[in-house]
Amino acid sequence: MLAVAVIGCGYWGPNFIRNFTQFPSVQMKTAVDLNKERLRHVGQLYPSVKTTTSLEDVINDPEIDAAVVATPVSTHHSIAKRLLETGKHVLVEKPMAASVAEAEEMKALADERGLVVMAGHTFLYTAAVNKMKELISSGELGHIYYISTTRVNLGLFQEDINVIWDLAPHDISILNYILDAEPTSVSCTGQAYIQSGIEDVAFLNLKYPGDIVAHTHVSWLNPDKIRRFTVVGSKKMLVFDDVSTQEKIRVYDKGVTVQPHYDTFGEFQLSYRFGDIYTPRLDDNEPLKNECQHFVRCILKRETPRSNGEAGLSVVRIMERACDSIRENGEPLALYPSEEPSPRSTN
Amino acid sequence: MLAVAVIGCGYWGPNFIRNFTQFPSVQMKTAVDLNKERLRHVGQLYPSVKTTTSLEDVINDPEIDAAVVATPVSTHHSIAKRLLETGKHVLVEKPMAASVAEAEEMKALADERGLVVMAGHTFLYTAAVNKMKELISSGELGHIYYISTTRVNLGLFQEDINVIWDLAPHDISILNYILDAEPTSVSCTGQAYIQSGIEDVAFLNLKYPGDIVAHTHVSWLNPDKIRRFTVVGSKKMLVFDDVSTQEKIRVYDKGVTVQPHYDTFGEFQLSYRFGDIYTPRLDDNEPLKNECQHFVRCILKRETPRSNGEAGLSVVRIMERACDSIRENGEPLALYPSEEPSPRSTN
Amino acid sequence: MLAVAVIGCGYWGPNFIRNFTQFPSVQMKTAVDLNKERLRHVGQLYPSVKTTTSLEDVINDPEIDAAVVATPVSTHHSIAKRLLETGKHVLVEKPMAASVAEAEEMKALADERGLVVMAGHTFLYTAAVNKMKELISSGELGHIYYISTTRVNLGLFQEDINVIWDLAPHDISILNYILDAEPTSVSCTGQAYIQSGIEDVAFLNLKYPGDIVAHTHVSWLNPDKIRRFTVVGSKKMLVFDDVSTQEKIRVYDKGVTVQPHYDTFGEFQLSYRFGDIYTPRLDDNEPLKNECQHFVRCILKRETPRSNGEAGLSVVRIMERACDSIRENGEPLALYPSEEPSPRSTN
Amino acid sequence: MLAVAVIGCGYWGPNFIRNFTQFPSVQMKTAVDLNKERLRHVGQLYPSVKTTTSLEDVINDPEIDAAVVATPVSTHHSIAKRLLETGKHVLVEKPMAASVAEAEEMKALADERGLVVMAGHTFLYTAAVNKMKELISSGELGHIYYISTTRVNLGLFQEDINVIWDLAPHDISILNYILDAEPTSVSCTGQAYIQSGIEDVAFLNLKYPGDIVAHTHVSWLNPDKIRRFTVVGSKKMLVFDDVSTQEKIRVYDKGVTVQPHYDTFGEFQLSYRFGDIYTPRLDDNEPLKNECQHFVRCILKRETPRSNGEAGLSVVRIMERACDSIRENGEPLALYPSEEPSPRSTN
Repeated sequence: MLAVAVIGCGYWGPNFIRNFTQFPSVQMKTAVDLNKERLRHVGQLYPSVKTTTSLEDVINDPEIDAAVVATPVSTHHSIAKRLLETGKHVLVEKPMAASVAEAEEMKALADERGLVVMAGHTFLYTAAVNKMKELISSGELGHIYYISTTRVNLGLFQEDINVIWDLAPHDISILNYILDAEPTSVSCTGQAYIQSGIEDVAFLNLKYPGDIVAHTHVSWLNPDKIRRFTVVGSKKMLVFDDVSTQEKIRVYDKGVTVQPHYDTFGEFQLSYRFGDIYTPRLDDNEPLKNECQHFVRCILKRETPRSNGEAGLSVVRIMERACDSIRENGEPLALYPSEEPSPRSTN
Repeated sequence: MLAVAVIGCGYWGPNFIRNFTQFPSVQMKTAVDLNKERLRHVGQLYPSVKTTTSLEDVINDPEIDAAVVATPVSTHHSIAKRLLETGKHVLVEKPMAASVAEAEEMKALADERGLVVMAGHTFLYTAAVNKMKELISSGELGHIYYISTTRVNLGLFQEDINVIWDLAPHDISILNYILDAEPTSVSCTGQAYIQSGIEDVAFLNLKYPGDIVAHTHVSWLNPDKIRRFTVVGSKKMLVFDDVSTQEKIRVYDKGVTVQPHYDTFGEFQLSYRFGDIYTPRLDDNEPLKNECQHFVRCILKRETPRSNGEAGLSVVRIMERACDSIRENGEPLALYPSEEPSPRSTN
Repeated sequence: MLAVAVIGCGYWGPNFIRNFTQFPSVQMKTAVDLNKERLRHVGQLYPSVKTTTSLEDVINDPEIDAAVVATPVSTHHSIAKRLLETGKHVLVEKPMAASVAEAEEMKALADERGLVVMAGHTFLYTAAVNKMKELISSGELGHIYYISTTRVNLGLFQEDINVIWDLAPHDISILNYILDAEPTSVSCTGQAYIQSGIEDVAFLNLKYPGDIVAHTHVSWLNPDKIRRFTVVGSKKMLVFDDVSTQEKIRVYDKGVTVQPHYDTFGEFQLSYRFGDIYTPRLDDNEPLKNECQHFVRCILKRETPRSNGEAGLSVVRIMERACDSIRENGEPLALYPSEEPSPRSTN
Repeated sequence: MLAVAVIGCGYWGPNFIRNFTQFPSVQMKTAVDLNKERLRHVGQLYPSVKTTTSLEDVINDPEIDAAVVATPVSTHHSIAKRLLETGKHVLVEKPMAASVAEAEEMKALADERGLVVMAGHTFLYTAAVNKMKELISSGELGHIYYISTTRVNLGLFQEDINVIWDLAPHDISILNYILDAEPTSVSCTGQAYIQSGIEDVAFLNLKYPGDIVAHTHVSWLNPDKIRRFTVVGSKKMLVFDDVSTQEKIRVYDKGVTVQPHYDTFGEFQLSYRFGDIYTPRLDDNEPLKNECQHFVRCILKRETPRSNGEAGLSVVRIMERACDSIRENGEPLALYPSEEPSPRSTN
């Protein structure tokens, strides 16, 4: 029996609580929030859960094995640090931290103590993303040329973080996961239309090994909601449309093949294929339930989470570099600066 | 009666011929192509049109008042120049020329001789684009924040020009037209996946006066065809979806208003509006017919075409700068270099 | 404080319980189900709710003022009758009863005792249906010509009731409500493909006063899910697409007007109008919450429910006549047989 | 070289002329219309075609081998009869004639003289309909349960024929073709809202051998254009959406299988399958071109057209019975009256 606490009872907190209350191997023990109204609401729905405004009630409870941190981003690090220091496994909502330094410290602390630290990249636990990963890694799409993603809507503007920190963790965590890699460089442009200094529209370019480029468009300023991944391979192409309820993944049997060509012909030969489209059926388990089960399983079986500290840290690092790039007028920046090829510095 | 020639009988040429044969005020006199098979086809469909492989038959025919140049881009300048030099009005397919220098010479020549030179930016003659312009200039959308455009499909790869020169003239000509301005700076990233050195995917950022940013994505490597303009204003937002047959323009009564705020409140106030959507009915005249009529009218009435030489030159200039920016790793470049603010050179 | 019981904890029961637990003026007191597993589930979620397998615990509890009957259709009448006999207000899931005789007895009993009996026609509590009603009754659509409805998908086949009793209560209750009338006659064809004697596909024709015909297609045998109402008026037309998340109601400013014509012209004159489309923004309250609130309000304020016993009875009567019509080869049948015009009997 | 005439230069006539002028084995010789304006238009586009207002110029021209009749329905019979009597092969626009008697005479006359008479059921020459036929006849869909078709829009009201004669020939010809059968009985309801006595909305039920029921909804009074076939089989299901440009045919790997069941189990067993969706790629040849080629080939090779006189006659017969059924209040009528089971007459 794993005793679990949930810190933060805003939007996501109650969904974690609901899931944990339904696992036979978990005791959903304590819920924490500074807002008493939220706590009253949770207490009414789940009377067996102890509610408290004090994080100390979790820190000081030796029975609690693990906790979810579902508070505002700026507090992730300080809360997770205290939890890890008292030996508790931690699942932190995305983004895992507000800076690379914070995320690094969280990861190091967990590694030291042999604890699980997991980032709440829920999309990695969806059937659609895992189908994308399977289609890419099995080679069915062929060589991947590029990936284009769009995550836009008329958003609820955040006051503390920009649209990149709000929306792009989804795209970046998915990209790293399906490509099984980190980008080598990041460039980004962004504009702050509504709130001075807080970008509400941004375009990221991520260069991955193997000449794969991912382009991500995030915006709080779009009239309709678009959630779309396009993966372009040499054999097939794929669209993941998360707004669609019935047909999230569509695989297009379309492609362009460069023919081997010989001097005698002297001419460039392209072969196009325009073929069928198919829509694989996907399971429809709740992703957050999968994520919670994964967290529990990794603790109990001492396995490494799919979205472990390293994965969470990478997402934070990419966003930090993206924001640096905005300030440098869209300059491409190496993800790990020491290795930066820096084409201009050679002049 | 205006006597007209059409140079180039590939895809667009016959459509020009079809339209001109139906205007009572026009004599569709001569069609030119190097390919005799194409000429035979045109001759069969329009027996009254004289067909020839020699441009000289047009140059030397004093009866011909005007000509359409619908040949490959690389030949636009040399053909148009000869036509203008013999006093003929010219309508040149888009893009107007292969370089700024060429386009400038064409424009100067026409101005000197008092001739019409018009670029074939057909979209400026569609009901949808004119509805967008009307909604923007009437103020119905409020202050324009940004415009995002997408023009992608599994394309017919060109061997002589990249995807920017192939597809972006549409987006750029529309943007200049609906905003009634030229961008001040251009940045662009692009990748050449299939043919070495010829970009098949590109992302352009155009900064227009008034802090309006337009972002344009063009690609020959996309599984489904997308033709989409999103215009985000402070009062309303608009989507122009050119793939839709019945509902090209949709206006969303959605917006975000920044409230005037006072120190005493100390807090940022945003007001959202989520409202109705409406789809204005649009006329469905053939845009090329509108364009041909406009050309004829501008010649006869001595009016300035909507897509005059200056407009065609601007589009060429923007593409040239975009391609420069690709080579400079996505650096933002001033449209008119002498005015370049060049943030880095000040260091 | 109104004390409420919910009889039946299958699919809908827990949703009623969830809503009632959130109303301050309601005590959600008792939940009944024969299945102990379901009761355990409810008890875990809502520990303050008493759970029992015995209906008698509700019947014999004088504190309980009202009950929801969310059991299989065949049991609606016997359960509701016992509840009404002991003076409890009743909300019965749709369809209200398995026959006209049953529904009539339920209605009579409630009228006698001055109790509320309400049918669970949830659609009458949606923003979309009320917008349809408003557009019709305000005259904005003009004279209503006809209504076509489709409610099809690959269904969960019922073993006790056919597709009409399963799906058509929604369409019929909406039609009666938005037209504020009952049909005068009903015809129906149906086929039983999968289970002998249990129709899985049916087409109903309902003639309403004013020469309005409604055509309803229901099916458990359709590959995609369609939920669609088309209302055709002389001034405007409307589509209610319940599968759409963002644009449930679309109003088409299209119409055909018959011009008054004179002998001198001798010719029939039709005037078409093809105009804009608009999509009104709708509130997104949970319809079941609205329904529960309405039930509570009608009890407390002694008002008549929108979906009162008469409305529920009418839906049952129409379905009974439809099934009679199937057995008579699609013959149109008067809703109230004594008034049947019976065109054939005059021969 | 086959010499061809086209009678009627309204909407379809010029399209026939355009196609025939492009076939090397055909001389598109003469075009006939009573309207001189239409003839002038045709003459301008195709100067080699002789234009005339007199049908006699075709009848009396012994060089003409074949003719297309693209005139109003009421004239099909008299024109085709004259052409057949002078030994000319005939392709008649759909519907082939205004009554069974007329169509029978046309078919008999052609049979007698050994001439081709072909009905212009263009859909039989589309890639989508032939893909449907292939999927049905190969058994891929399993046993066909039922077919539902919808052909509705805000129509151009005809003054001489009702919506059944205008739109249903498409659906009926496709149904007969893909099922390779004629219906045994027909029932139909229809309403005349706009023009007295001319139905603008109708619902047909066609019973085909093997307990297959086809339901067809045609309307001139619908706000949006729907062109949809749903074919429900025991193994798979199919939707043909002719409004879609890219994905006309979608095959759903969904089905319901009735398990063989045994007395010992005593319970009904259904097995559902919810699977992938696929969209086969279709050729995009112009259907009218295919149809014209087929006509020419059948004449030259003495083959029987896919839409021969018998097929055209069957469509006319079904529509005639449908209109009879409307007048009999929706009564199901046998297609061939002598075989009518007439359930009521046995009383």
